[in-house]
This record gives sequence, C-alpha cells and structure tokens, in this order.
Amino acid sequence: MSSSFGRLFVVTTFGESHGPAVGVVVDGMPPGIAVDPAELQRQMDRRRPGQSALTTQRSEADQVEILSGVFEGVTLGTPIAMLVRNTDARSEDYASLKDVFRPGHADHATFAKYGVRDHRGGGRSSGRETVGRVAAGALARAAVATVGVTIAGGTVQVGSVRAVRRDWEQTEQNPVRCPDAKAAADMARVSGVVEVVAMGAPPGWGDPTMAKLDALLGAAMLSIPAVKGVEIGGGFGMCALQGSQTNDVFDGHAYLTNFAGGIAGGISNGADIVARIAVRAATSIGKPQTAATRQGGTTTIEIRGRHDPCICPRVVPVAESMMGITLMEAWLRQRALRGRDR
Amino acid sequence: MSSSFGRLFVVTTFGESHGPAVGVVVDGMPPGIAVDPAELQRQMDRRRPGQSALTTQRSEADQVEILSGVFEGVTLGTPIAMLVRNTDARSEDYASLKDVFRPGHADHATFAKYGVRDHRGGGRSSGRETVGRVAAGALARAAVATVGVTIAGGTVQVGSVRAVRRDWEQTEQNPVRCPDAKAAADMARVSGVVEVVAMGAPPGWGDPTMAKLDALLGAAMLSIPAVKGVEIGGGFGMCALQGSQTNDVFDGHAYLTNFAGGIAGGISNGADIVARIAVRAATSIGKPQTAATRQGGTTTIEIRGRHDPCICPRVVPVAESMMGITLMEAWLRQRALRGRDR
Amino acid sequence: MSSSFGRLFVVTTFGESHGPAVGVVVDGMPPGIAVDPAELQRQMDRRRPGQSALTTQRSEADQVEILSGVFEGVTLGTPIAMLVRNTDARSEDYASLKDVFRPGHADHATFAKYGVRDHRGGGRSSGRETVGRVAAGALARAAVATVGVTIAGGTVQVGSVRAVRRDWEQTEQNPVRCPDAKAAADMARVSGVVEVVAMGAPPGWGDPTMAKLDALLGAAMLSIPAVKGVEIGGGFGMCALQGSQTNDVFDGHAYLTNFAGGIAGGISNGADIVARIAVRAATSIGKPQTAATRQGGTTTIEIRGRHDPCICPRVVPVAESMMGITLMEAWLRQRALRGRDR
Amino acid sequence: MSSSFGRLFVVTTFGESHGPAVGVVVDGMPPGIAVDPAELQRQMDRRRPGQSALTTQRSEADQVEILSGVFEGVTLGTPIAMLVRNTDARSEDYASLKDVFRPGHADHATFAKYGVRDHRGGGRSSGRETVGRVAAGALARAAVATVGVTIAGGTVQVGSVRAVRRDWEQTEQNPVRCPDAKAAADMARVSGVVEVVAMGAPPGWGDPTMAKLDALLGAAMLSIPAVKGVEIGGGFGMCALQGSQTNDVFDGHAYLTNFAGGIAGGISNGADIVARIAVRAATSIGKPQTAATRQGGTTTIEIRGRHDPCICPRVVPVAESMMGITLMEAWLRQRALRGRDR
Repeated sequence: MSSSFGRLFVVTTFGESHGPAVGVVVDGMPPGIAVDPAELQRQMDRRRPGQSALTTQRSEADQVEILSGVFEGVTLGTPIAMLVRNTDARSEDYASLKDVFRPGHADHATFAKYGVRDHRGGGRSSGRETVGRVAAGALARAAVATVGVTIAGGTVQVGSVRAVRRDWEQTEQNPVRCPDAKAAADMARVSGVVEVVAMGAPPGWGDPTMAKLDALLGAAMLSIPAVKGVEIGGGFGMCALQGSQTNDVFDGHAYLTNFAGGIAGGISNGADIVARIAVRAATSIGKPQTAATRQGGTTTIEIRGRHDPCICPRVVPVAESMMGITLMEAWLRQRALRGRDR
Repeated sequence: MSSSFGRLFVVTTFGESHGPAVGVVVDGMPPGIAVDPAELQRQMDRRRPGQSALTTQRSEADQVEILSGVFEGVTLGTPIAMLVRNTDARSEDYASLKDVFRPGHADHATFAKYGVRDHRGGGRSSGRETVGRVAAGALARAAVATVGVTIAGGTVQVGSVRAVRRDWEQTEQNPVRCPDAKAAADMARVSGVVEVVAMGAPPGWGDPTMAKLDALLGAAMLSIPAVKGVEIGGGFGMCALQGSQTNDVFDGHAYLTNFAGGIAGGISNGADIVARIAVRAATSIGKPQTAATRQGGTTTIEIRGRHDPCICPRVVPVAESMMGITLMEAWLRQRALRGRDR
Repeated sequence: MSSSFGRLFVVTTFGESHGPAVGVVVDGMPPGIAVDPAELQRQMDRRRPGQSALTTQRSEADQVEILSGVFEGVTLGTPIAMLVRNTDARSEDYASLKDVFRPGHADHATFAKYGVRDHRGGGRSSGRETVGRVAAGALARAAVATVGVTIAGGTVQVGSVRAVRRDWEQTEQNPVRCPDAKAAADMARVSGVVEVVAMGAPPGWGDPTMAKLDALLGAAMLSIPAVKGVEIGGGFGMCALQGSQTNDVFDGHAYLTNFAGGIAGGISNGADIVARIAVRAATSIGKPQTAATRQGGTTTIEIRGRHDPCICPRVVPVAESMMGITLMEAWLRQRALRGRDR
Repeated sequence: MSSSFGRLFVVTTFGESHGPAVGVVVDGMPPGIAVDPAELQRQMDRRRPGQSALTTQRSEADQVEILSGVFEGVTLGTPIAMLVRNTDARSEDYASLKDVFRPGHADHATFAKYGVRDHRGGGRSSGRETVGRVAAGALARAAVATVGVTIAGGTVQVGSVRAVRRDWEQTEQNPVRCPDAKAAADMARVSGVVEVVAMGAPPGWGDPTMAKLDALLGAAMLSIPAVKGVEIGGGFGMCALQGSQTNDVFDGHAYLTNFAGGIAGGISNGADIVARIAVRAATSIGKPQTAATRQGGTTTIEIRGRHDPCICPRVVPVAESMMGITLMEAWLRQRALRGRDR
C-alpha cells in the first residue's frame, strides 16, 4: 500500500538507490494502448541525471526493460512490470555514513521508522525512486493522449526570478527547463517552483469530497522527493482576492478565467488543469555540516557522492508523470461511474 | 472509495446539504478509546455556522448522534456511525437555480460528471459535508492524544495581513480564529491562509515514497472545500533559499530549525508537523454574476441563500480534523509495520 | 476497511445488534439508477426474522430510511446511507452473559481481538449486521438489472435432502425457501446448503489472478455469518472427475455444460454464475452447554434470547445480496477497464 | 488492484507465461525479518513442474532473483521485488491456437474481457503466475514464523480416496503430496482436495463482518488457478449436523473440537486454522476436443504443450503460500488495531 499510488491505475515502485535495480509495476492499464519503446526511453532520458552542468554527474544509461503486460506492441490489460538495473552505484562513497544521520535527509526519520536501513545513499528516499514513476508516467501519458489529453511542465520560478511566458516548446531548450527563455537565463539557483499543466481533459473527472481531483493531485505532487508545497490554479495567490474576483465565469462554452485551475468542487471543469509545486534545494551539499549520529551524538560531515545542484529541471518530467498518472486514475474512475469512454 | 479518506482509519462521509441528513462512518478506530460526547459536540459547534458576523447565518443545532461503535463510553473497535439531521435547509431558496450553473461553484462540473444533480445548494460540494469530517476528527484527536499528540490551528493570513505570533490559546478569542490577537483585528476580508500544527508526534510516521506523510496531508487538506493550496514547513517560501539554509540540523535531541515541517523524506522526524493551506473566497456572493445555463446559454444571477462572507475561521476546525484523521492513518500504519504502540 | 466490501462499489455496514441502529453506506453507485422504496422494503422484509415457525421470533419492523444519495427517485452517484433503528432489542436477556463466552459464538475470539465487547448479543457478529447487506443488495440488484442481470437463490440441501429441481418461483412458497417444492417438504433441520445464481451476466467480468470473480464471490459468501464453505459450479463434486468430463465445451454460442459455474480463469464466460454455500447450524441453542468464562473457568449456560432454529431461508436473501454486490464490483471494474457499459 | 492480494501486506504478481519473466512485488513486509535465500529457492523448487511422473515436463530452473527490499540478509520494510525469467517457453507450440478458444481454459473469457490476448499459453491465467505467489509466500511464512505460526498442507482426497491421517512430514515423501502414505498409494487421478493448516496463530486475527478471516482465506484460495471450492473447518460436512453437535466447546484453555476451523465469527480463536480446497482436473488434456474459434465457429483441437496430469501436488505449495500471505495480512491488521505484536 505504502509504495503504490492509485486504486484503479495502481503504480507501485520498488528498489533502493544502491540495490540491484529499481522499477515499477503498473496495474490497471486498459488493453490495446500502443506502447512506443522509443518514447518511453526518451522520457527516461529526460529524467536521467548528468544532462547538464546543473544536474548530478552520476551517469547511468537507465535502459528500461518491459517484463510483462505488453504483447506485439500493445498493452494486454495485465500488469506491466518495468525494470532498470542500477549500474553505477558507487556504494563505497557512503561507507562513512553508516552511523550518521545527514541534515536535511530522511536518514534519522527512516531509522526511527524501520529500525534498519540501507545507508548507501537515500535508499527508497533517493530521487532514484522516481525512475519507476517516469516509466509509468510515459505509459499513462500515452493512454490519456488517446482521449485528447496532453501534459506539459516546466520550471516557472527560481529564487525571485519568475517565468512570464508559458511557451512549453521552450522547456527542452534551456538547462533549467523553463517555458520562458528570457527568464531561464537568470535561473541558476538551487530551488524553485515547477508548473505542470494538462490540456484537453473533459469536464467530469474527479470527485466532490475526499477524492477531489485537487486532493489526488496534491498527494501525487507531494509524494515527489523535495516537493514541500502544491497549489492548484490561483492557489496561495488568491488569499488577497474576493469571490467576485476569483469566480471563474463560464459562458456555456469556455471559462473566461482559470483561478480554479481547471477543477471546481474537486471535479474537472474542462479548463486546463494547472498545478504548481514548491521544490526545495537539494539536501546533499558540499559544505561541512553538523550531523547527528546513531549513537546520539553529533559529528561534522562533508558529503561527497554526486548530487543535483539544481533539482527543478529533473523534477519537471517526474511532475508531468505524476500528473499523467493522476489523470489516468481519475479517468478510469469516471469510466467506472458512467460506463462510457469519457 | 471516492467518499472515503484513509485505508486503515477509514472516514466515509455521506449526505447532501439539503437532503435528510449528513454523517460519517469511522472504521478502524482502535478499541478502548474514551469518547467524550461533550467534547465531540464542542467541536461540532466550532464548525457550525452563525457564530459571528463573519460567518453564514444558517442556524442549525447540528446535534450529533452516535449510532454505533461506542459502548459504555469507550470505542468497541467497530465502525462508528454518526448522524446529524438537516433541520434548517430552505430548499426553496434554490428553486431558481435548477437549470443554472453558478460561477465559482461546482454546479457545471457536477452535472458533467453525474448527469443528474441535487440542485438545492451544493449537494456533496457544500461545506456542510464537513460536518462528518469534524465529528470523525474529534474522535481521531481523542485517539492520537492517548499517545501525546495535540493539534491546533488558526487563520494566519488574510489578504496581506499576516499573523506573527502563534498563540494557539488566542484562536477562539477572535472571530477570525487568528493565533495573533493584534493581527486578528485587521483581518476581515474574505480569504486567507490557515495553519494547522500537530505537536508531540514521534519520529517514524509516514512512508518514504507514494504514501509520504506530506502526500497524505496534502490529499487531506486539498479535499477540504475552498482549499486550493497546501505547503508543509517552509513550503513555497523555500524557493529562494539554498540547501545550506534549509537543511534542518538535528543535534541528536531536537531540530534547530523546522523547514521540513516535521516531515523528512515523507516520514515524521519528531518536530512539530506544520501545514498551511490557501483558502479561496466563498463562491456564493451577493453581487449579480453571469452564469451558464444547462441549456447552453447564459443568465444573470443574484445568489440569495445564506453563505459565509469569511470562510477561514470555519475552515480551522475542519483542517484540524483532517490533520487528526491523517495522523490516525499514519499512526495505525506504523503500528502495523512495527507491532508496537508508537 | 474491515467493515467494507468492494473497492469500486464499496458497501460499509455499521451497527451492533443491541445498539441504537444498524445500517450501511453504499459508495460508488452510478448515478441515474431508479430506486424503488417498495422493492427495497420487500427485500428487507424477506430478511426479517419471525416470518415462519422456522425462524426467530424477534419481531422488528426493520423500516429502512434512505438518508442520502437518492433525489427525486434516482441515485445521484453520491454515497447512499441507509438506516434501520433497533427497536426490539431486549438487552436484559443477555445480562447474565457479560463474563461468559458462549460455545459456537464469536464471544471469546471477539474479546481476544478487541479487549472490550458489547456483550448484549452478538454485537457485530450478530446476523443483524446483514440488514445493511440486504439494503445494499437491493440497490445492487436494481443496478445490475439495468444491464440484464437477474439473481435468484434458495436452499438446495438440508441434511441429506437435496433439491433436484431449480424452480426459483417456488422459493417464496415454502418456509425453507427451497426451489424444489417436493424436497422442501422434507427439509426442517437446522443447517444446509444455499445456492445462488446470477443469470444474464456478459462474458468478461472478473480478473485473471488475485481478483478472480471466484475469489470475490468467495470472500462475499464467506463473509456471511454461519457460512463455512463455498463452491463455484461443479465445486467439490469435480474431485472425482477428469478434465475430459469437466471441460465445458463452448460451441461459439453457448456452453454445453457449466462445471465452471460461469467463471473460467476467474472471468465470467457468459453462462449462469452459480455459487453454493455451506450454512452451519445456529450456534444459539436451547440445550444447556459448557461455556468458558472471562475469568478462565467454565460454567453451564442455557441461552434464552430469540434465535433461528433454521438459518438457511434467512441466508437466502443475504446470499443473493452479496451476489448482487459482487457483480456490481466486477461490472464497475470492467467499465473502468474498457470504458463501455458492459 | 486486480493483480494484488491484501491491503497491508500487498502481494502483486506480474508476468505472462510466455513473456520475458514472471515475478512479484511484496509491499508491507515489516523490517528486520531474516530472509534465507536457500529456503526461498526450496519453496520455488517445490512449486516447479517436472518433479515427478505426475506433473508437467516443462523444466525451468525458476531461479528467483531478489531485486529490492532486502539488505544484509534482512528485510528493510520496503517493497521486495522478486523476478524469475521465463527460459523454456516453447511459444511455437501455441501458434495454432491464435484464433481458437480451448475448452475449459479462460481463452474465450479473456478475449471477451480484454479484446486482445497473448495466445501463447494461458498468459496471466497460466499456473505459471503462481511463481510470484510462492516467492511471496516463502517470505510471509518466514515472517509469521517469528510469532510461532507454522503452515502445512497436502493432498487429502483424489477421486474417492481420502487421506485418513494428517502426518505432514509425509507430504514430501510421495508424488501426490499426501499426508497419509497409505492413501497416497491409491491417488493417481487428476483432481482432488488439498488441505492446508496453520498452527500457532493466536486468537484475535480477522474481523467480524466483511473482512472475516474466512472471507480473506476464501478469496486467497479461490484465486488459485483450478480451485473451485473452499471450506473452513467442518465446511460442507456440517450441513447434516445440529448446533449441539458443531458448537466447539472452549474449556478456557483449548477447543475440544474444531468444526469452526479455528475461526469463530470471522476471528481466529486460537485453534488450528484449517481450509480445504477443491481442485479441478487440468483443462489441458491430450484427447481431441471441440473448441470455439474467434470467428464464431468451432474446430477440433488436440493440445500439445506440456501440462500437469495431476495438479494437486503442485497446488499444495501455492495453497500454503496463500495461507501464509493471508495470515500476514490478518496479523498486520491486528497490529494496527491493537498496537502490539500479536
């Protein structure tokens, strides 16, 4: 349960960052969806570290192998297991951390939870766990595309530099994956805000109470490592506005504004679905830091390993994936409810 | 599924705003927890409208009746059903809205989803659905209190007025439920930010990947009507900071800062668990507005009914309840994992 | 979780036998299904005790009240809560049983599980819990009927007397609810076998592995009080037969035999879905019996209360209900998978 | 969802019989459980075909690889993925079956369900899917053994030959895996009854209503390929007995009889937990049979491939595994409820 997202479109990741492999099982994919291995690998490559000076230098091919659920190029409707071997995990870098809880990391909380831990890197808390999410997300995006839904994302704020434009074609053209080329030039800091948008979703997805589409999206986004906030549509920016300013007027055809971020009362309203997430800075830094030890004292550590100076661009494909996975879940729930395709 | 929160501590609400009743079934409550009907009713009363000039004038006693699961003052470990009758629902106020989709409301999205709807008020999308959450939350809070966890919440921002102090004893002393009496005096607008804090949770609750405690809390908070954003700890404020600034140092006994909001890598770390939520303005307003009709045209409406000019103070007990409910879920999951009480 | 059946069509019962009320919340019902209160009450009456000399004399009207989810005679797609008050619970009959664990009952196991218990009757283990199942089953049956599925059931074996015919119109004509009038005349003992059949289900419902339709049905049937066995189609009778005898031949239009009970590899094949369940004798009997005490000793008890000399006829509507509930779950899952009505 | 068993101890299998691999992800395993690879492999070998003249000649090493969740010989509390490559799948044997639905198999139902299928063997409906169950079962059994629970199983009836003794040490000594050596000599037919017993489970596991331990076990057992019936304790044999005969007397220390099969009112009572399952004959047989074609006609087929003339001995380790998996689920649920180890 704790490693799965979704109930109808169930995405279960597995694997420690320095174990034999990481991967994912996707259960609930409808049959007959075409799977393009090249597109799948392209998404894996977008997530892969070592793509620019901004991201970690750990270089793994991250070749994904499909183990089940796909036959003659289409999904069978059965679980799709996908596997990526860990090939470049220099565990020895972490030997000195066996009894040390690094600041900012989950080391202490993990030990408190389980009583044992794989001290070689973050284990399950490592960003490497997102390999499985992106693989699942690639399939989810292919599936929702069959009903006209497309997903785009990018870094929209770093420090106080904000993207003004949303030119999604730009995002792969600059290292910070910003949809505003001009703003991108000024973004080189360590944390920021990523925005992800789904276009083409019909009205009617999501539920009115506990399973609001906002809530599913919130869980999806806040399950991404380093994400500590999420807002839908106008979000925190609405706290100084009145109802007469933020009530999106629907003229029978389209919404004139989108403060609701495409979700009214938990249910998609046909407008773009917009989420923004707060990405904190990488917790592995070069500077010496005070760290607690398992024995109850403190020590000073300098983290070697290889880490991401700027996480945002790598979070973009993960956030897009979680958007795709969330919409698959909402879509299938609506199909169950109404018995028709959308 | 869509009306339930949690998998071990399952809170299922039911009821339309203008139907016979609203209520909740709580399944998974451990046996032997003392239930104090007066405290339960006190929480119901905090949620109740008509408490001040700031909130809606609909006046219902909201007497909660426990139908099952409690015997001789303690929980049995069986499902606890609680019922509140709807006694003051002036349905006729809504007759003119049968074929109209109000701006800002879920009317259009609801009709697109179900193809039928109870047009008398918000139905399931009404704030009245939170009656069941607060009843469940009162029990959840009593349960987590047995292991030393207490929960407090308040309005911490309205417009550009921010609370500086966090004096939780103050929250019931001013109509906006602000933990800073001085700031409260300036808070009279329509939307804002509510903060909720859990104190006393041990390290080890939550999970490292899909079921991060951040994610559970995110889903819980974003399932509350009118909430469009959530942040944990430093949240969006961290987007201009570096890792060396936001890495909370643990000295073996306590965390020197709390940018993580008490959750590291998805797992509680022993510090206070802090969530802040963005509350949009009430969508029912007095001004004339353009609304779409079911037939595809538009019309101009003036909403009568009785609604909340300022939602924040009423959201406070609901957010506290969802915090309590989320921690129950995390606590029980940890008990299953480790086989001991905390 | 523990009081719910299903994940898409979620039926959650609540209530102790001698508490204020019993009831059910049905979440996941598609919108637009007509609800006939008279038919709902008719099913409640079929379950009700005191219908013949064979069943218990506890006489309660069991008037069911719909609290939510139905508006102007049709389902809204929102949770449907239904309530039945306990009006004739003579708790004093049970006062002497406070510290005694009755043989055959769940008293000891319940106390071991929870550490507390409502000693007045069976609490949750009472047959009275099935009130909620039958109410939910009535709605489930109305829903599956919209796609042509009808459900019938009856007592087919008591002691060594077996029904030969399956004339489902006969079942309400004799006190044991046997579809074979001639066999019914000889059935007056205390335990037996109930058969329940669903006609009209299309091929394709159910799943091939963990969620086989056999498995869902097995869980549904074995969750009924007093049921200790279930078989699908040929069941235990196939253990002396060879594959050449039990392979149902499909001629492209129909199955020539039905050893599979309408389920092949976990998936409905279009033939009638047939389940038979073993119903043990009522555990409350008049004779003096040795019972354990909470203090660790033994005592001799004579159970007064009012109980069912023959359970089978009352199990029939419950088993039909669980068949209907199971098929709703399987139907909705298939709709999610394929995006079309059947 | 459809490929998973359990909610706290979640066992998700994947893989088609003639795809690249089969495997399983086990999520919810407590941390700190010792994993013995030799014992794991020994259970895999017990399941493996080609062990005697009675079972299929397909010979695969079935070497299981642990991909995650185990570190330095103990479980981490994180998901455990296990993989077995398919190395000896002669797909060409099945080429002629592309458009044919074999009698007794799930071919037609599978095609009706998904609209596509992997025609090379049974796909997900193949007995090969149980590889993942046995791998998960080996871990589950190691885990419940830490609280004193052991599990044994064997073939107890083939045709009309019934085992009288339950000498579980005998089961690996004869090809039919019968716990009665004398009866085993007469068992060479194709179908039968398997019994599986759990010893040492404490009272208090399971739930009183929808999640009765009987119901969980029923679902577990009926999810095994070829199983069409399950009975707990006295099962169908009780249908000729009265309550005074089948009420197990508890003398404060032990149960004098075990008609309840160790489960009273859905909750374990401390006695042995006993389930028996009806195993139908293998559906793949040598004889010519009439089969339907995808085009709507019929044809005559002779199935080559390699199949199990007698399935029972291979079902034994699978049934033991599902018993172990079910008890893990029940154990963890009870730990969540009570916050202590048993």
